[in-house]
Amino acid sequence: MTAARLRGVVPPIVTPFTESGQVDVASLERLADHLVVSGVHGVFVLGSTGEVAYLADRDRALVTRTVVASVAGRVPVLGGAIDFTAARVRDQVASIVEAGVDGVVVTAPIYALNDTAELERHFRDIAEAAGKPVYAYDIPARVRTKLPADLLVRLGAEGVLAGVKDSSGDDVGFRRLVAANRAAGAPLSLLTGHEVVVAGMLLLGADGVVPGLANVDAAGYVRLWECASAGDWAGAEREQRRLADLFEITAQARGLSPDAAGVGAFKAAMRAQGLIAGAGMAFPVSALSADAVDRVEAITRAAGLPIAVPFEVLQ
Amino acid sequence: MTAARLRGVVPPIVTPFTESGQVDVASLERLADHLVVSGVHGVFVLGSTGEVAYLADRDRALVTRTVVASVAGRVPVLGGAIDFTAARVRDQVASIVEAGVDGVVVTAPIYALNDTAELERHFRDIAEAAGKPVYAYDIPARVRTKLPADLLVRLGAEGVLAGVKDSSGDDVGFRRLVAANRAAGAPLSLLTGHEVVVAGMLLLGADGVVPGLANVDAAGYVRLWECASAGDWAGAEREQRRLADLFEITAQARGLSPDAAGVGAFKAAMRAQGLIAGAGMAFPVSALSADAVDRVEAITRAAGLPIAVPFEVLQ
Amino acid sequence: MTAARLRGVVPPIVTPFTESGQVDVASLERLADHLVVSGVHGVFVLGSTGEVAYLADRDRALVTRTVVASVAGRVPVLGGAIDFTAARVRDQVASIVEAGVDGVVVTAPIYALNDTAELERHFRDIAEAAGKPVYAYDIPARVRTKLPADLLVRLGAEGVLAGVKDSSGDDVGFRRLVAANRAAGAPLSLLTGHEVVVAGMLLLGADGVVPGLANVDAAGYVRLWECASAGDWAGAEREQRRLADLFEITAQARGLSPDAAGVGAFKAAMRAQGLIAGAGMAFPVSALSADAVDRVEAITRAAGLPIAVPFEVLQ
Amino acid sequence: MTAARLRGVVPPIVTPFTESGQVDVASLERLADHLVVSGVHGVFVLGSTGEVAYLADRDRALVTRTVVASVAGRVPVLGGAIDFTAARVRDQVASIVEAGVDGVVVTAPIYALNDTAELERHFRDIAEAAGKPVYAYDIPARVRTKLPADLLVRLGAEGVLAGVKDSSGDDVGFRRLVAANRAAGAPLSLLTGHEVVVAGMLLLGADGVVPGLANVDAAGYVRLWECASAGDWAGAEREQRRLADLFEITAQARGLSPDAAGVGAFKAAMRAQGLIAGAGMAFPVSALSADAVDRVEAITRAAGLPIAVPFEVLQ
Repeated sequence: MTAARLRGVVPPIVTPFTESGQVDVASLERLADHLVVSGVHGVFVLGSTGEVAYLADRDRALVTRTVVASVAGRVPVLGGAIDFTAARVRDQVASIVEAGVDGVVVTAPIYALNDTAELERHFRDIAEAAGKPVYAYDIPARVRTKLPADLLVRLGAEGVLAGVKDSSGDDVGFRRLVAANRAAGAPLSLLTGHEVVVAGMLLLGADGVVPGLANVDAAGYVRLWECASAGDWAGAEREQRRLADLFEITAQARGLSPDAAGVGAFKAAMRAQGLIAGAGMAFPVSALSADAVDRVEAITRAAGLPIAVPFEVLQ
Repeated sequence: MTAARLRGVVPPIVTPFTESGQVDVASLERLADHLVVSGVHGVFVLGSTGEVAYLADRDRALVTRTVVASVAGRVPVLGGAIDFTAARVRDQVASIVEAGVDGVVVTAPIYALNDTAELERHFRDIAEAAGKPVYAYDIPARVRTKLPADLLVRLGAEGVLAGVKDSSGDDVGFRRLVAANRAAGAPLSLLTGHEVVVAGMLLLGADGVVPGLANVDAAGYVRLWECASAGDWAGAEREQRRLADLFEITAQARGLSPDAAGVGAFKAAMRAQGLIAGAGMAFPVSALSADAVDRVEAITRAAGLPIAVPFEVLQ
Repeated sequence: MTAARLRGVVPPIVTPFTESGQVDVASLERLADHLVVSGVHGVFVLGSTGEVAYLADRDRALVTRTVVASVAGRVPVLGGAIDFTAARVRDQVASIVEAGVDGVVVTAPIYALNDTAELERHFRDIAEAAGKPVYAYDIPARVRTKLPADLLVRLGAEGVLAGVKDSSGDDVGFRRLVAANRAAGAPLSLLTGHEVVVAGMLLLGADGVVPGLANVDAAGYVRLWECASAGDWAGAEREQRRLADLFEITAQARGLSPDAAGVGAFKAAMRAQGLIAGAGMAFPVSALSADAVDRVEAITRAAGLPIAVPFEVLQ
Repeated sequence: MTAARLRGVVPPIVTPFTESGQVDVASLERLADHLVVSGVHGVFVLGSTGEVAYLADRDRALVTRTVVASVAGRVPVLGGAIDFTAARVRDQVASIVEAGVDGVVVTAPIYALNDTAELERHFRDIAEAAGKPVYAYDIPARVRTKLPADLLVRLGAEGVLAGVKDSSGDDVGFRRLVAANRAAGAPLSLLTGHEVVVAGMLLLGADGVVPGLANVDAAGYVRLWECASAGDWAGAEREQRRLADLFEITAQARGLSPDAAGVGAFKAAMRAQGLIAGAGMAFPVSALSADAVDRVEAITRAAGLPIAVPFEVLQ
C-alpha cells in the first residue's frame, strides 16, 4: 500500500490538547500508534476532524511530525494542506512534506469564488510543486465548492491527482464519480468520508474510507473493511450498523456548533476509553456539557467498547 | 477622523500585478495616492477586492507596507487580517499592525463551523491582542456565517469592536443593525460594502461605505458622500445612479467566476484610465476576454470617466 | 391610478379568522375599508401575508369577493393567483377575476424546477388568458426561483407584465431592475415588498411598496409615500425609522415559524388597535404566546399607535 | 402486500401526453399494465416524475382513474396529494381516494414557512381525514423542508403515517431514519427515491424504492430487488451498476431545466422502447433536442434495452 494507491481505512486523526490548550504530543503519539496497531491502512493528519482550521502553522508542523514519527512508515501518512489558494497551499504542502507525509490532501480554493477552469489550474499548480501524491478533498459544507467529477477523473488520468476524499454528502454524485473513474481505468483512489454509509459505498466501489469515528473505534472499521473485501456484505452491514449506532454520540450536544458537537463527541468517547488524556477542544470551540459526556459514554459502552478506568487514576 | 471612528468613503484597494504575476508596487503606490488625493476618508487594504485570498504572507506584508507608506498618515489605513480562526488571525493582525495599519478587519471563522458563543470568543480574543481598532467583516458569501446584529452591538458597546463592514447583501439586516447601534449610543462605525445602494444606506444611517468600485471612480463616491452629508438626497441619488450604471462593468464577463468578473472589471476600467499599469489577476483567476474589456471600457467612458492614452505609450 | 400603472402604497391585506377558524368576513370588510380610508393606493388580496397558502379555493374566493366589495372601486384591488404552474394558475386567475380584481399577481412556478425559457412561457401563457394586468411576484424564499431582471423588463416592454412585486430581499438586484426598466421606457410598475427599506427604495426609483406592516399602520406608510413624493427625504426617513422600530413586532416570537411570527405579530398588533376582532391564524400555524403578544403591544404603543379598548368590551 | 406495508419496487409512473398536450390515456393504461407485468410491487401516481405540478385537477383525476383501472388491484396504487397546506391537501386526498388509490403521498407544506410543531399538525390532520395509509414525501429540493426523522418515526408509531418516500438525497439521514424506525418496531415502510444507490439503501435496511428510472427499465429494478431479497449483494450491485449507467440519460440535456432533462430523458427512452407513443412534456417544459434524444437512445441501447421499431411504423 502506498500513498498513491490508497485503499482501506484511513482515519482523520484528531488533535488532542492539554488542559492549557497546547497540542498533547504524548496522547497524539499514543493515538497514532493505536490506530496502526488496530489495523488501519493509512492515517490522515490535519483534516477537519484534526481541527486543522484552529491550528497555527507551528502546531500544524508539530502535529505532522509527531504522527509521522509515531506511525514510523508502517502505513502511509496523508497530510492536509488546507489554506485559501494555491500560493498559500504550496507553502503548507512544503511544510508537511518536509515533516514527512507520504501524500497531501487539498481542497478547492477557500474564500475565493472560482470556476472550473480556475479549479483545474489550482490543482495542477499544487500538484506540480508537491512532489507527493495529491488527494482532492471535496467538502462543500466548509469550502462552498462541489468538485466536478469529470474534472477529478481527468486530472486523475493525467497523474495530477492520486485520489479523492469525498465528504460532500452527495452519494449519488459519488456513484457517478466511481463510474467515471472506472471507465477511465480507475486512476483515482476514491475514499468516502461518511462514517455511516461505508458498507454501501464499498459495495458500489469505493476504494476506502476516511471515518472520523475510527478515532473512537478503529477496529470496527477494519472489521467492516475486511468483511467487504471478502464479499461478506451482510457481515459488513452488521458492523456498519453497530458503528452507525455509535455515531449517535455526535448528536448528543444539540445546542452546540457542529465542530463542538462532532469532534467533541469523538474526544469524549476516546477519553472514556483511555485513548487520549483529555477531551479539550481548540480555541474557541465550546466543551460538551457533563450531561452530554454522560450520554456519549453510555452510547460508547452500548456499542461494546471498553470504558477505561478513569485516565487520571492511571497516571 | 481616526480608525476608531471611521466615516465616509473607504475604498478596498485592489492589488495590481505585473505581467509576471508579482505585486506591482509602483502602480499600488500611485493608486493609493490617487485615492487619497481624490478625497477618500480611509483606505482598506487586503480585502476581498484586494484579492487577499490569493496572496502569500510575504505579499500581504508587501502590499500593506506599500499602501501605508503611500498614504503617509493622510487618512487611516485599515487592513484585512483574513485567516481561518483566532490562532491564525492573531498572526495576521500582528503582521499588518507591524506594517503600520491603523485598524484591522476580521471575518467570522472560516472553514470552521461555529456558533454565536464561539464567534464572540473569536472576536474578543483577537481584539485583546490587536492593540488597534477591530472591524468585523460580515461577508457570508465567502465565509458562510452571517454575524448577528445583537452580538456586534454588544461587542461595540464594550469597546471590543470599533465597527462593521457589512458585505452581507442583507439590507433589512443592515437597517436593524443601524437601529440597534443607535439605541446603544452608536458605539460602532457601520460601513456598507454594496456599491449600488449607498445613497439609501446613508439615508438610513450608515456611517460610510467601502465600495470596490471606488477604485474606478473615487471622486464619484466622494461627491455622493458630500451630497448625503449636506442632506441633498436627490443629488446623492443622481450620483449613485451614475455609479450604478458604471457598476455594470462587473456584469460584462458572464462566463467567468465572480472573482474574475468583478475584480477583473475594476482592473480593466482602472487600466483604461491609466490608474494602474496592467489588469493582471492573481493566479489562478482568469483574465477578461478582449470583448469584455471593450465593453468595460465603453461603460467606463459612458459614465464620464476619462479613458487615458494607452499606458504603454506613456512609459 | 389603475391596476396597470400602480404607484404608492398597496398593502397585502391579512385574512382575519374567527375563533372557529372561518374567514372573519366582518373584520375583513372593516379592515379593507380602513385601509382605503387611510389613503392607500391599492389593496393586494391573497398574498403571503394574506396566508394564501392556507386557504382552500372556496375561502380564496370568499376573501376576494369580500375585499372587492368593501373597497368598492375606490382603489384598484390586486389578487394573488398562487398555484403550481400555468395550468393551475389560469384557474386561479379566472376565479379571482370573476370575483372582481383589477389585476393579478403571479409567482414563478412552484414545486416545478424550471429554467428561464420555461419561466417566460409561463408568464406569457397566464397573461394571455388573464384579461387583466399581470404582476410578477418575485419571492424566492417561498418559490426558490429568483426572477431575472432582463426577462421581466422584456415582458414589460411587450405588455405581457404590468409590474413586479419584489420580495426577494436582493436590493442590489432591485436597483438593477429599476435601471433596466427606466432604460426601456419604464413599462413596469416596480413595487418593493420590504417594509423597512422603503425610503431608500423610493429614493432609487421604486414606484411603490407592498408592506405587510401597512395592515398595522397604513397611515404611516401613506405619510412616508407623501414625503418621498414631495422630495422630503429626511421626512420620509423619519417616518421609515418609526415604522422600522414598529416592524420589530415580527421578532418577538423567536421560537415560532416565520409564518407564525410574522403574520401573527401583525394580527396581534391589529387586534390591539381594534382593527380586527381576533388574532387567529390559519391551520396549522401556531399562535403567539401571551408574553409575545404583550411585547408586540408594547412596541405598537411605543410607535405611537392607539391601543384600543379591548375588543370584547366593544361588542 | 398492502398499501400500509409496502415493500419492493414502486415506480412513480410518468404521465404521457399526446401531441396536442392532452393526457395520453391509451399510453398511460399500457404503461401501468407493463409495470405490473414486469413485476413491480406497487405504482405511485401523481409524483414529481408524473409531472403532478403541471396537472390541473381534472387531469390529476383522469390520470389516477386510468392507472387504478389498468392496475386493477394487482398491486397497490399510491397517489400524490400534492398541494400547499392541509386545507388544500385534504381536497386532493378526497379526490384521489375517490378515484381508487390505496394510499396517499403527502409532502411538507409548500410555499408556507412552518416549524416542526406545525408539520406535525399538518400530517395528523391529513391522516385523520384520509381513511387510507398516508406516506410522507420528503423532497426538500422542491418544498424546502427536510422532514425530521424523529417526527416521522413518532407519527409512524402512532399509526398516523404508514411510511416515507425519501427523495432528500441525504443518505446519512436515511440511515438514521432506518435505525430510529427499527428501534421503534419498524412501524414505517421506508422507501428511497434515489435510483442509483438502491443496492446500498436496501443493504442498510430500506423497505423498497420508488425509482423514476423504473419507468424505463422496470424489470431491472425488480431483478435488483430480488437479488437483494436473496442476500445476493454482488448480484444486486451488478444490476445497480447497469441501471446507474442507464441513469446517465438524465445528464444528456445539460442546458435544460431539471424537469425537462430528467423526465424528458425518461420519456425519450420509453418512447424508444415503444412503451409510450410520444415523449411530449407538460406545458411549459422544454423538449429535448434531437441530439440529446440520440444520446439517450444510445445509452438505452447500451444498457441492453430493446429499441423498438419506430412507434409511428407500428400504428
